[in-house]
Amino acid sequence: MNNFTLHTPTKILFGKGQVAQLREQLPSDARILITYGGGSVVRTGLLAQIRDELAGMTLFEFGGIEPNPTYETLMGAVALARAERIDFLLAVGGGSVLDGTKFIAAAAHYDEARDPWHILETVGNEVRSAIPLGAVLTLPATGSEMNMGAVVTRRSTGDKVHFFSPFVMPRFAVLDPVLTYTLPARQVANGVVDAFIHILEQYLTYPVNAKVQDRFAEGLLLTLVEEGPKALVEPENYEVRANIMWSATMALNGLIGAGVPQDWATHMLGHELTALHGLDHAQTLAVVLPALLQAKRQQKHAKLLQYAERVWDLRSGSESDRIDGAIAATRDFFERMGVKTRLRDYGLSELGIDTLIGKLAEHGMTAIGEHGDIDLVQSQHIYEAAW
Amino acid sequence: MNNFTLHTPTKILFGKGQVAQLREQLPSDARILITYGGGSVVRTGLLAQIRDELAGMTLFEFGGIEPNPTYETLMGAVALARAERIDFLLAVGGGSVLDGTKFIAAAAHYDEARDPWHILETVGNEVRSAIPLGAVLTLPATGSEMNMGAVVTRRSTGDKVHFFSPFVMPRFAVLDPVLTYTLPARQVANGVVDAFIHILEQYLTYPVNAKVQDRFAEGLLLTLVEEGPKALVEPENYEVRANIMWSATMALNGLIGAGVPQDWATHMLGHELTALHGLDHAQTLAVVLPALLQAKRQQKHAKLLQYAERVWDLRSGSESDRIDGAIAATRDFFERMGVKTRLRDYGLSELGIDTLIGKLAEHGMTAIGEHGDIDLVQSQHIYEAAW
Repeated sequence: MNNFTLHTPTKILFGKGQVAQLREQLPSDARILITYGGGSVVRTGLLAQIRDELAGMTLFEFGGIEPNPTYETLMGAVALARAERIDFLLAVGGGSVLDGTKFIAAAAHYDEARDPWHILETVGNEVRSAIPLGAVLTLPATGSEMNMGAVVTRRSTGDKVHFFSPFVMPRFAVLDPVLTYTLPARQVANGVVDAFIHILEQYLTYPVNAKVQDRFAEGLLLTLVEEGPKALVEPENYEVRANIMWSATMALNGLIGAGVPQDWATHMLGHELTALHGLDHAQTLAVVLPALLQAKRQQKHAKLLQYAERVWDLRSGSESDRIDGAIAATRDFFERMGVKTRLRDYGLSELGIDTLIGKLAEHGMTAIGEHGDIDLVQSQHIYEAAW
Repeated sequence: MNNFTLHTPTKILFGKGQVAQLREQLPSDARILITYGGGSVVRTGLLAQIRDELAGMTLFEFGGIEPNPTYETLMGAVALARAERIDFLLAVGGGSVLDGTKFIAAAAHYDEARDPWHILETVGNEVRSAIPLGAVLTLPATGSEMNMGAVVTRRSTGDKVHFFSPFVMPRFAVLDPVLTYTLPARQVANGVVDAFIHILEQYLTYPVNAKVQDRFAEGLLLTLVEEGPKALVEPENYEVRANIMWSATMALNGLIGAGVPQDWATHMLGHELTALHGLDHAQTLAVVLPALLQAKRQQKHAKLLQYAERVWDLRSGSESDRIDGAIAATRDFFERMGVKTRLRDYGLSELGIDTLIGKLAEHGMTAIGEHGDIDLVQSQHIYEAAW
């Protein structure tokens, strides 16, 4: 096991009706900016419910944060937060709203003489403070509700990049599985696939004898395999929704990644596919991952066998067969969730490989994966295999 | 899954050499009281190392906190903390030092007109502040380094009781597996058994379809079963020590107990055995648990079967046989760790059942377990079966 530091101070309020505890999580005299996305929280009545819960407090609102939230949109909220001297941000939505709100939080406190895009360029290292934030989660997927990372896209340049800062770790997150009942199937499926691949990015590397982290990861994977398909056919099954929601948070709150090597190459390759072709985040992961696992099957040999046995119950046949079986079972799981696993199935006319590789190079992604051995040549190979 | 609130702000610094990060965890102008136990941290040189790391800071020391820390001893530290206006406590030791330090932290801030024993009598509900505290852990067992609970004994009356308060949650905990190399085998064994039973108290109840919590619990149990015996024969195997240390912390930091029913009757019955007969905490648990599982096998039926299958790989035979097999395997595991599982093996001349039951009644333990259905009659039956 590698050395690690783990600090996860987000307070979790999990379960049916927990929005009722929102008021006591917020400073009573705060100037609060509620951030949200494309309007589903208006249609479902959640935003109105939150306004009721917080009646009498000083509230502002900023809607319209899009999937893969853009710098261009978020800078509007940064201006509002500065103008209104906002001192608490309440994100209501999924991972995109959360990530966007983290950027708003850091950017509003950033040196006004500098373009806050610099926060992304320096991966958050220069963030020295941020507006405190909390969240009401409506889409289990990204784990952003309990971590310090965020991904932001700049529309003008097609860049999709991340930053990390402990200052943007949410103070609290309300996780009510009931709020996920009304999600479209595509978002449910994307969320399950996203969480599943977050786990694999921290698990399918090489062994360091971290038994707790491995078994926690496997427990989350098994839970998503069992519950994911059920969520599609029984959208109002509370227990199913609860297990998925808690799995997705645990998938990326630092716990299973503490003290183990991490990969994240699938994400890096996926980000460029979203930026270039507009695929959903989870769709990009579902097409890249199986191709990447095939390409790195030697380097990931031991963990692929462990994954085959403990998650897919593949215990017989040659080692090579078991690894093929595990990769096929992974692909099949994504397809059963309704997420296609080959780029050609998304109606693209061409891969655009030169642009993808050019953007990877521009973003410094020339030596990625847990060994730093995925160079641009291998990335091209993986993109082509993902077609 | 039941609703829950989970808030675990303790910062974990895990791994070899992490004591070197101690200084930056502490306020530079703090008046720090280092608390420790019977002197092993003096003999191993850890205390001297910590003094070196913190050279130039304002340090005080209080040693002699005993296993099952007593109110009588701890009140000496409370007086010191008040007199010296201590504003940070650094616990160096195992669960007893941690628990004792939590009491010191709360008692030093308690209304001076009242006896701090009242903190225990009100289970911590009246604690409104405490001296902030951090820990350097030397014995993986109790999980106290990452939770808000503590158990304190009053020697004069033979009471062993607990309290909880978010104000005594450690700010940080240094977990260096190397520090556990020199532990006596008995303490290693006790620690593994203690952690194992902490997990069972939160797992072996009845199903609420909390798949993540169940699988996390099972992952910890499997890790302890695999690594516990190895620690006895290979005391300087870093990976073994690391897996045990992390398992013990995860066993009782709130995570696996969030949203599920909990039992804790084994602990309640065990506390009286320590108070009356002076058995080690883990020894009391190891004798009570098998007897309790037999007594409650109907109420715990479904989870006992799950435990039999997933932890002990018992998949064939009748349900009753599998449950017997799981209880026998549990007992056998404790015995292999060198912890005897029958009271008569501890050289006692008599059970002292009247005193035990009287103390349970005095402490209000008349309806315990996850269903509140273990009354004094059943407790007597369990004690007798544990003989």
